[in-house]
Amino acid sequence: MNIKEIAGILKSHDKFEILTHNYPDGDCIGSAYALALALKAIGKKARVIVTDRQRKFEYIFSLLEDEEFDAEYIVSVDVADEKLLGPVNKPKYSGRIDLCIDHHKSNVIDAAVKYVDSDSAAAGEIIYELIPELGAKIDRNIADCLYTAISTDTGCFRYTNTTSKTLRIAAGLLDIGCNSEYINKEMFETKSKKRIELEREILDKMIFCAGDKCAIIYTTKKMTEGLTDDETEGIASIPRQIEGVKMGVTIREKDEDFKVSVRTNDGVDACEFCGKFGGGGHAAAAGCSIKGDLGSVIDAIVAEAERTL
Amino acid sequence: MNIKEIAGILKSHDKFEILTHNYPDGDCIGSAYALALALKAIGKKARVIVTDRQRKFEYIFSLLEDEEFDAEYIVSVDVADEKLLGPVNKPKYSGRIDLCIDHHKSNVIDAAVKYVDSDSAAAGEIIYELIPELGAKIDRNIADCLYTAISTDTGCFRYTNTTSKTLRIAAGLLDIGCNSEYINKEMFETKSKKRIELEREILDKMIFCAGDKCAIIYTTKKMTEGLTDDETEGIASIPRQIEGVKMGVTIREKDEDFKVSVRTNDGVDACEFCGKFGGGGHAAAAGCSIKGDLGSVIDAIVAEAERTL
Repeated sequence: MNIKEIAGILKSHDKFEILTHNYPDGDCIGSAYALALALKAIGKKARVIVTDRQRKFEYIFSLLEDEEFDAEYIVSVDVADEKLLGPVNKPKYSGRIDLCIDHHKSNVIDAAVKYVDSDSAAAGEIIYELIPELGAKIDRNIADCLYTAISTDTGCFRYTNTTSKTLRIAAGLLDIGCNSEYINKEMFETKSKKRIELEREILDKMIFCAGDKCAIIYTTKKMTEGLTDDETEGIASIPRQIEGVKMGVTIREKDEDFKVSVRTNDGVDACEFCGKFGGGGHAAAAGCSIKGDLGSVIDAIVAEAERTL
Repeated sequence: MNIKEIAGILKSHDKFEILTHNYPDGDCIGSAYALALALKAIGKKARVIVTDRQRKFEYIFSLLEDEEFDAEYIVSVDVADEKLLGPVNKPKYSGRIDLCIDHHKSNVIDAAVKYVDSDSAAAGEIIYELIPELGAKIDRNIADCLYTAISTDTGCFRYTNTTSKTLRIAAGLLDIGCNSEYINKEMFETKSKKRIELEREILDKMIFCAGDKCAIIYTTKKMTEGLTDDETEGIASIPRQIEGVKMGVTIREKDEDFKVSVRTNDGVDACEFCGKFGGGGHAAAAGCSIKGDLGSVIDAIVAEAERTL
């Protein structure tokens, strides 16, 4: 089905519930609210189901008033798997999704209608093309939602998923007058004090090995106590970005074991490395879980890094 | 003069020397090399004068072979003031610039012909429009130069100078096949080990005051010993990006005094603050110099911040 046909289906319904994934990111929230606002603009009723309302997206949440109505059509946006609906919403919505809109290649949602475009850097790119087909206009509010969606999923146009189409869509949103200045500051230039303190502690304890070709950072449960997922996001990029480092390793203490994320440059095989510990993934990004105490986990990683690099 | 007329002048000459500013950044290097490559492509001779060849731009330097010839036309790119040519080139080229191409509103170069467009986020935007007027094609190499220019001067499209035109030009460069993946990694995702250690030390010593509304960081001469300007760049953004901080202050020990940079959010007047210490600047970004020892400088800043915030 093409985007015109998807728009046709949406136009034939009236009361929408739009599902997001657990711990929603900017793309999920921005895309879902953009779609809801567009549906309302053409006279429909729409609500967005959000399990975890992060304060940083308040400028988006505030755009849509809560309304009581019985939804008759259920749309998921940016959700690759029903499991990701979370413990409350998975049982509630399982098997009930009418339309799934997503950009994850790995999408396994079982929905009556699916529109998955993995060439899109963000679900927001799909919604950007869908809205005019609905007969709605992308106004400033919708542009703020879509700019949030597209900028966050591309690391503000820095990640390799950024295409010329991504940049042209963003240009269109700037022309509409989206508040990119505010959004960029909130999404990319703001860190909580706790996050800054975590970074300081991580840098204090960073370990280099294999002739500085491997950098290892770790967080203990104590270090991340009271921090939200959002506040610990992206720390895995710290070791990888150091000049000369071919393998950046992040170790996180969990309840039962240590989760290890490995990011590599210059052809070093992260998947093979993690395979030694029963894990796997991609050539440049892989993971594994290791049981034991922190010291022995670090020793095992260091020993394997010395062998590999 | 419009861009067509500038192109006409360039076409009427044959042997070019292109000047860059001291400690050139990505926009200066990328724009100058893009112009030189385009001039060579239409059969001219061109060289770029670079005082400080930073290793991270080697992929650009390698695009242009050195050639011996007597230049007869001198162009400056991204240079706002002859002083910025540096101690060696200022006396050599003073009063000799034939054409000045720049995007700084503050440009005070005295050149025979000037083309200053302060609506452009980067000098690279001007060169992007100039090259087709020369009758040259923006090939992949030139696209790499221009992508470097435009992405670095906009913080990878994050700064407020980014316009829809900026994003559309970047889209065009991606379509040509510029290696944005490599450039983004080199320019935005790579930090030297020394830089990481400096950040760690800065975070260790960060001071909060005025109810956490002011964050102060400092570097001593010892902390930055052996680091290049490039490696210490951007540290002023560390205090400002902390949630709730309205005033981020960076103190740098210099030979004779301490240089203080103040960045503010939410309408706090940085210029007024720095005025108290005999400095000045803009409402959101200002600076001053304070004599004394580090302890007394910090005390003075803290006391003034407590009064102001």
